[in-house]
Amino acid sequence: MPFTPDDHHYMARALHLAERGLYTTDPNPRVGCVIVRHAAVVGEGFHVRAGEPHAEIHALVAAGTNAEGATVYVTLEPCSHTGRTGPCALALAEAKVARVVVAMVDPNPQVSGRGIRLLEEAGIQVDVGLLADDARQLNPGFIARMAHKRPFVRLKMAMSLDGRTAMGSGESQWITGPEARRHVQRLRARSSAVLSGVESVIMDDSRLTLRAEQLQLPNADEVVLRQPLRVILDTRLRLPLAAACLSAPGRTLILTTAAHAPEKRTKLEQAGADVQVLPAAEGGRIDLRQMLSWLAENEQVNELLVETGATLAGAMLAADVVDEMQLFVAPTLLGGEARPLFALPGLSKMADQRRLTIHDIRAVGQDWRIVASPVRD
Amino acid sequence: MPFTPDDHHYMARALHLAERGLYTTDPNPRVGCVIVRHAAVVGEGFHVRAGEPHAEIHALVAAGTNAEGATVYVTLEPCSHTGRTGPCALALAEAKVARVVVAMVDPNPQVSGRGIRLLEEAGIQVDVGLLADDARQLNPGFIARMAHKRPFVRLKMAMSLDGRTAMGSGESQWITGPEARRHVQRLRARSSAVLSGVESVIMDDSRLTLRAEQLQLPNADEVVLRQPLRVILDTRLRLPLAAACLSAPGRTLILTTAAHAPEKRTKLEQAGADVQVLPAAEGGRIDLRQMLSWLAENEQVNELLVETGATLAGAMLAADVVDEMQLFVAPTLLGGEARPLFALPGLSKMADQRRLTIHDIRAVGQDWRIVASPVRD
Repeated sequence: MPFTPDDHHYMARALHLAERGLYTTDPNPRVGCVIVRHAAVVGEGFHVRAGEPHAEIHALVAAGTNAEGATVYVTLEPCSHTGRTGPCALALAEAKVARVVVAMVDPNPQVSGRGIRLLEEAGIQVDVGLLADDARQLNPGFIARMAHKRPFVRLKMAMSLDGRTAMGSGESQWITGPEARRHVQRLRARSSAVLSGVESVIMDDSRLTLRAEQLQLPNADEVVLRQPLRVILDTRLRLPLAAACLSAPGRTLILTTAAHAPEKRTKLEQAGADVQVLPAAEGGRIDLRQMLSWLAENEQVNELLVETGATLAGAMLAADVVDEMQLFVAPTLLGGEARPLFALPGLSKMADQRRLTIHDIRAVGQDWRIVASPVRD
Repeated sequence: MPFTPDDHHYMARALHLAERGLYTTDPNPRVGCVIVRHAAVVGEGFHVRAGEPHAEIHALVAAGTNAEGATVYVTLEPCSHTGRTGPCALALAEAKVARVVVAMVDPNPQVSGRGIRLLEEAGIQVDVGLLADDARQLNPGFIARMAHKRPFVRLKMAMSLDGRTAMGSGESQWITGPEARRHVQRLRARSSAVLSGVESVIMDDSRLTLRAEQLQLPNADEVVLRQPLRVILDTRLRLPLAAACLSAPGRTLILTTAAHAPEKRTKLEQAGADVQVLPAAEGGRIDLRQMLSWLAENEQVNELLVETGATLAGAMLAADVVDEMQLFVAPTLLGGEARPLFALPGLSKMADQRRLTIHDIRAVGQDWRIVASPVRD
C-alpha cells in the first residue's frame, strides 16, 4: 500500500477523534474522519451518537467546498446504505474528494466493500488498511456483532493477590480502591450491556449503573444519559422486587429459561424489568452461546461487560465465550478459605488448565490491573 | 554530608563490585571497595568468599603505595576485629589513606561504629551514609541476623493467575516456565538456606539444590560449590530415608519438636541428615520465631528462602515472619477446586485480611513475577 508518513499522521488523528465517541456511539461504531487538502486539515469530525451524523458528514460540513480534490482519512469504510443518515460514500463522491484512505473495511460481510466500490465507481482513489489493527481495537464489540453475530465479551473481576473475591462467610466489600472502581465505571460506560448472575445481584444488591461522579470524564453528564442495559441471568426468577437495580436509571433485562412463575414474571415486569425466555442448556441453565447471539441480534449488544461471581464467570470461561479478562488485583491476601475467583467444575487435571495470554499489567492506584485473554485452540 | 558527584560515582562502583559476591560470600556480607587517588581508581575489590580477604584488603593490595593519601569507598563499615583476616580499619590506617567514605555502618550493634572510630583516631576523615539504602539492599539477611538475630525471610511461591498452586487431586507440575525456574535457582543461590515443610518435600520429592546448568551464571560452577542448607520442618520425622534431598549435594537439616522416634532419627542421621529438636508452639508445631532465631544463631542463616506449600506458607504469614514474597504467576487458570496459595486459618473477616505492599511486577519469560511484602502495623 502506498501509505506515506503524512497518511499515518492523519489516520492517527482520525483514530484519536474516533475515540472521543468511545462512551456515546453505542450501538454504532466509533468512527473518526479527517479531510486534508494542500497539507492542511480542512475538516474533521467523529461520530458522537446514534441518530446523529456520521463522522464523514461532520468532516464534510466543516470542510465545505474545500473538500473538492481533498484526501479523506476515515477509520471505517464509509457506509453505502441509507439509514437514519444518508450514505456517507455518496456524500463523499458528491463533494468530489480525490482520495479516500480507509483504515478497515466494514465488518458486516453483507455490506463489506460496497462503500469502497461506490467511491471507486465515482472515480475516487481508495486505499484500504492503514492502521487497521488500531481501528479494529476501537470497535471490538461492533466487529464481533457484525462479523460473528455475538458481542465482544469482557469479563471483569476484582480479586486479592491470592485469587479470592470475598471471605468464605460471604462477607464482601470493595477490596480494590477508588481508581480501580473508576476504571470499572469506564468499562461499563463503553459497554452496551452489563451481565450478571442473579446470585451476585442479590448478594451485593448491585445497581450496575454508571455514576457521573465516579466516571471522572469531562462529558460524564452526557455519558450517563445512556445507561448500559443490565442483563441478569435468573433461571428461576428469583430477583427480589425490591432489588435496587429495578429502580435504577436504565433498563433491566431478566433472562430466564422457562415460562414458569408467571405471577413473579408479571410483578417483575410491573417493577420495570423486561423478562425474556431463552433456551436452556444441559443442566437447566441458560445456554450461554445462544444467550449471546440473542443479545447481539435483539439488543444490538456490541461490548458486553460481565460482572459476576465465580459460578457464572467459570461457566463462561468453560464455554469459551470470554474474549477479554480484566482482573483488578488488590495487594492483599484473603486466604484459602475465602471465595475463589472462578468455579471451573470438572477441571481436575493439569492438562485441562485454561491458558491465558497476558496483554498488560499496570498499576491502578494501589491496585493492579491485568488484561488477559483465554488462549483459543 | 559533603558528598560530591564523584563520591556518588565511586560508591556506585563499589556497590556494583559488591554485587559480584552475591552468590558466594555467605555467611559474610557482600562488600565492595574502590580506592581513588588524583581522580583515578588505583585499586578495587570485593569480598568473594568467607575465609578469603575482605574487599578493602583486595583493593589495598591492588593500590599498593598509591593508597597513601587516597580516598577509599567501601559499602560497609570496615571491620575492627581480628577474625580470619586482620582488621580492615587497621590496614587502611597503616596504608595512610586520607579519607574513607562508608555507605553504611556495621549492622551489628555490638561493634557498630568501632571501625569508624579506629579510622578517625588514626586521623583519617570518615564520611558515612552515602547510598546507604542501596548498601542495605545488598545484605538484607546479614543485616537482619546482626541487628535482629533472625534471618531475612523470603517466601517464594508459584501460582496460576487465580491463585492456585496445583490441582485439587494433588497433581502438580511446574506451572511456570524455564525463566521463572532460573530466577528461583538464583534466589536459592543467594540464600544461606532453603526451608520447606516435610509435606511438600515428600509430595514433590524435591532436592532443593542449585544446578549449575539452570543458574545460567558465568561463575555457576563456582556458585554451586556452596549449596544452601536445606532445612525441613518435620515434626514427626516423616521424611522417607529414600528422599532425594538426603543424597543430594549439600547438607540437610531436619527440625523436629520432640525426641520421639529415636530409631528413625538415627536412620535419618545415618542417611546424612542433621536432626535438631526445637521447642514446639501451641498445637505441637515448631515455634516459627524460635526456629528462625535458632537458624540465625546456630547456622548463621542470613537470607532464608521458603519454598513450601499452602500450610507452612500460611503459618509463616500468620506469624508475621515473612519479609518478602516473590510470587511467580503463570498465565493460566486452575479453577476453584485447585489447591490454594495460602492456608490462612482463622482469617474469616475482611478486617483480618493481610495487606501487602507490591514493590515490583515484571514479565519473566511467559510468566510474571510479583515482589511484595506484608504491611506491618
